[in-house]
Amino acid sequence: MTGRPVTVLGLGRMGSALAGALLDAGSRTVVWNRTADKAEALAARAAVPAGSAAEAIQASPLVIVCLLDYDNVRAVLEPNADVLADRTLVNLTTGTPEQASALADWAGTHGAHYLDGAMMAVPQTVGTPEAFFLYSGSSEAFDAHRPTLDHLAASHYLGSDPSVAELWDSALLGSGYAALTGFLHSVALLDTAGVAPTRFLPLATQWLNGMLAFMPDLAQEIEAGDYSKGVSPVDMNRAAVHNISQISTRHGVDADVHAPLLALLDRRIADGHPADSFASIVEVLRERRD
Amino acid sequence: MTGRPVTVLGLGRMGSALAGALLDAGSRTVVWNRTADKAEALAARAAVPAGSAAEAIQASPLVIVCLLDYDNVRAVLEPNADVLADRTLVNLTTGTPEQASALADWAGTHGAHYLDGAMMAVPQTVGTPEAFFLYSGSSEAFDAHRPTLDHLAASHYLGSDPSVAELWDSALLGSGYAALTGFLHSVALLDTAGVAPTRFLPLATQWLNGMLAFMPDLAQEIEAGDYSKGVSPVDMNRAAVHNISQISTRHGVDADVHAPLLALLDRRIADGHPADSFASIVEVLRERRD
Ligand SMILES: NC(=O)c1ccc[n+]([C@@H]2O[C@H](COP(=O)([O-])OP(=O)(O)OC[C@H]3O[C@@H](n4cnc5c(N)ncnc54)[C@H](OP(=O)(O)O)[C@@H]3O)[C@@H](O)[C@H]2O)c1
Ligand SMILES: NC(=O)c1ccc[n+]([C@@H]2O[C@H](COP(=O)([O-])OP(=O)(O)OC[C@H]3O[C@@H](n4cnc5c(N)ncnc54)[C@H](OP(=O)(O)O)[C@@H]3O)[C@@H](O)[C@H]2O)c1
Repeated sequence: MTGRPVTVLGLGRMGSALAGALLDAGSRTVVWNRTADKAEALAARAAVPAGSAAEAIQASPLVIVCLLDYDNVRAVLEPNADVLADRTLVNLTTGTPEQASALADWAGTHGAHYLDGAMMAVPQTVGTPEAFFLYSGSSEAFDAHRPTLDHLAASHYLGSDPSVAELWDSALLGSGYAALTGFLHSVALLDTAGVAPTRFLPLATQWLNGMLAFMPDLAQEIEAGDYSKGVSPVDMNRAAVHNISQISTRHGVDADVHAPLLALLDRRIADGHPADSFASIVEVLRERRD
Repeated sequence: MTGRPVTVLGLGRMGSALAGALLDAGSRTVVWNRTADKAEALAARAAVPAGSAAEAIQASPLVIVCLLDYDNVRAVLEPNADVLADRTLVNLTTGTPEQASALADWAGTHGAHYLDGAMMAVPQTVGTPEAFFLYSGSSEAFDAHRPTLDHLAASHYLGSDPSVAELWDSALLGSGYAALTGFLHSVALLDTAGVAPTRFLPLATQWLNGMLAFMPDLAQEIEAGDYSKGVSPVDMNRAAVHNISQISTRHGVDADVHAPLLALLDRRIADGHPADSFASIVEVLRERRD
């Protein structure tokens, strides 16, 4: 146990994993949870349970917050505004970009340094090379505490606007959910022919690795704003997605999963760009912006 | 140029790539295309252009067909039914499982051996280690011609039911499209904060690799039919997807992409299974089946 202590507020599944990773790294770790008995297992590993949130905040220059949502964070911090001065708050609770901005402003008025974070991890991966955390807000706070934060996960600082980590969180989670949903849809489709999911898995993995290898091309086309050189035109993809939808429906599997892409391709064609490359549907997605 | 000749009917983008891969492998390659001038570049590489489809079919025991759709295949083969006896037809044209079954039956009545195929490739990857082709139908035909087919792409035989390759094709394409759509949606979302696609790419790739690593768990849960041991419950995921949708809408980006998953999670909750793991939404996808 070395150096200055670190406080963790919130010992749910993620908060307990965070405190555990700090203990593993030899940090003096002060813990607090609304329901006190969740501190017991950590106390047995030499964490120091605080009697109150105020006590926990006062114990350490760095206060890591991991509750269920921002309303909980407000409920815990607002009564303790008077002990926040000069503390660095690292809030890893999931929320919206707007909630992060508002909390950063509020913390600032009480003299705290604020760093917002998003955890690309599950409890089991905290403290392992699989996990990475996103940060935005005070760069001074990030630089000062990075060695400690690196014990939790690989740390990525995304900018001084505190809302940005939550936006990246949505972007990453969203692309992950889309990939998993597509996989489950395909599993349901093949199930109609008695193909087991584990039999589908190796080729699905190979094909999806090919899609990952294709993403740099898409990113570059979008960045260049030039959709004329891609190999995979909108109208050809429209025909393919239509075919997949029809086959799903005919096999009695919910085809709604592919309906949004079909609509995007149709809109791109209606906009007069059937020969543009697939990446160009990002332009239709952006169109909704006011 | 060795061994028995191989015929390729159809010299569009894919057909030309197939004939090119056969020539690269030293096969005697007979080619035919409705529009004859597409054979010229291949003839310059020692392919033998046939004067008619009938001539092309008669020239080789193995006839690879790659046209735009099954209607074209019918249009080319039906007038030549009398020269199909003892030929092996490998039809790589994209279609539905039902079209593949019907064509296999028709070919059988004319004495041909039928193998249906689906190409997991683009013209540029034909003949490279990136490509793989799926086959279903006559196992004798597959075994007899596999050495030739392996020059086109890695070959996977999926069963004697000729419709199965098309179903796998839909499943693989569908999961790929879902992943790419999610990626483009996230690119559009981060664009609202001025984040360039190529800046998003490295973390997106890392996160999606994590999703790929998670898929074996999903496959095993579904195969076991046990959703009680997963780490990621439906209600928690519902809250996360709802959050992503709200953030998309608030940032003016089309949130429809995530609407089907939200609906699936809601249906699983309504069915009384909020604590089941994420993989269990496959049960709701299957429910549509009559
Ligand atoms: N679990 C994951 O895989 C995962 C992954 C990435 C991000 N996240 C995010 O991490 C955060 C925590 O998730 P979790 O899985 O650890 O949740 P959890 O296990 O449900 O824990 C929730 C925590 O919030 C506390 N809490 C709730 N309401 C409170 C209130 N009004 N006042 C004080 N404390 C309150 C709970 O205290 P009590 O013990 O007293 O109820 C508990 O410490 C969430 O924002 C979640 O979205 C989770
Ligand atoms: N391109 C890809 O990336 C890709 C990837 C995987 C699978 N596929 C599938 O591969 C197949 C071929 O695609 P492609 O990209 O090669 O298409 P393509 O370049 O448009 O070529 C279409 C071919 O079909 C022929 N054709 C069309 N209608 C015909 C008719 N009525 N009678 C005779 N021939 C006819 C064309 O002949 P003419 O030259 O005389 O018009 C041409 O040879 C499709 O089923 C496609 O879904 C394509």
